Amino acid sequence: MVGYSDEKDAVLKRLHRIEGQVRGLEQMVRDDVYCIDVLTQVSATTKALQAVALLLLEDHLGHCVSDAVRAGGRKADEKVAEAAEAIARLVRS
Amino acid sequence: MVGYSDEKDAVLKRLHRIEGQVRGLEQMVRDDVYCIDVLTQVSATTKALQAVALLLLEDHLGHCVSDAVRAGGRKADEKVAEAAEAIARLVRS
Amino acid sequence: MVGYSDEKDAVLKRLHRIEGQVRGLEQMVRDDVYCIDVLTQVSATTKALQAVALLLLEDHLGHCVSDAVRAGGRKADEKVAEAAEAIARLVRS
Amino acid sequence: MVGYSDEKDAVLKRLHRIEGQVRGLEQMVRDDVYCIDVLTQVSATTKALQAVALLLLEDHLGHCVSDAVRAGGRKADEKVAEAAEAIARLVRS
Repeated sequence: MVGYSDEKDAVLKRLHRIEGQVRGLEQMVRDDVYCIDVLTQVSATTKALQAVALLLLEDHLGHCVSDAVRAGGRKADEKVAEAAEAIARLVRS
Repeated sequence: MVGYSDEKDAVLKRLHRIEGQVRGLEQMVRDDVYCIDVLTQVSATTKALQAVALLLLEDHLGHCVSDAVRAGGRKADEKVAEAAEAIARLVRS
Repeated sequence: MVGYSDEKDAVLKRLHRIEGQVRGLEQMVRDDVYCIDVLTQVSATTKALQAVALLLLEDHLGHCVSDAVRAGGRKADEKVAEAAEAIARLVRS
Repeated sequence: MVGYSDEKDAVLKRLHRIEGQVRGLEQMVRDDVYCIDVLTQVSATTKALQAVALLLLEDHLGHCVSDAVRAGGRKADEKVAEAAEAIARLVRS
């Protein structure tokens, strides 16, 4: 029913790993790890989050948006516009 | 016929303005303008390029991808995957 | 001693909030929340991580890099190059 | 005197190449080239602009900011804060 049903487990696993990465970052800061090493790990975590976003987005295009396009009418245009706005938020973040 | 036909003039106008912005950047560097001011202008030009990309992408989703989805079959999945890859390149650039 | 000592508490608080945001994302996926709403929250979490990176970076420039520059010699150039590489990783992530 | 004097020629060459890339993009749109291929080229141009920004920034840190740090006083803090803001604009663009 939902767009990302196919990928739900994969997405959950990735998010859980990211939660662990963020906890690891907190530990690094508490341990006074050298800032450049913390920054490298922040970049890796950001990339992992963006990979989740791209996975969700591809699934959304292949399901919700495609279903709306097949159904036709104004709903199809709305779904495309909504997806484009979500992509814009990702590109700008 | 092509996906971005609706937006062709708008895209061309924006690209032409971006070309002018890049020429302006060259002049700034030649004139030894303060680096932070050059950087601010580079950021503005990058944002303008990304806005063009988002315009092209929305048009692509609403035309090429939607047409393929309506036609159905393996082609639809291919178009969605291809669009997702283009989005990934944008997010990572 | 370390570069981000001034900001350590602020950084820890932000990271802890981000950890909560990621846990919230997992719950959203488990609850089959609409993908666009999940994506909006992923973008917000990514921005929060980048804000932490920028905080760490400013502190690093004002401490580690500035200390090396004042000490002079080859170490100063190395620290500037190292910071530039960390900035490049952030810009590309 | 200016921060990016060392790199001035390299930066000008890169910017001139980017100007050509943008002109190439205009031609692609005029020729109705497939949108995904235009998008790929937009991503490449965006990356080239970011590479120029990173070059300018490293030079700025190694010159203007380092000079201010060596001179000491409030000016040093101002230069670090100003550089941090420029980095934030780059990361967000």
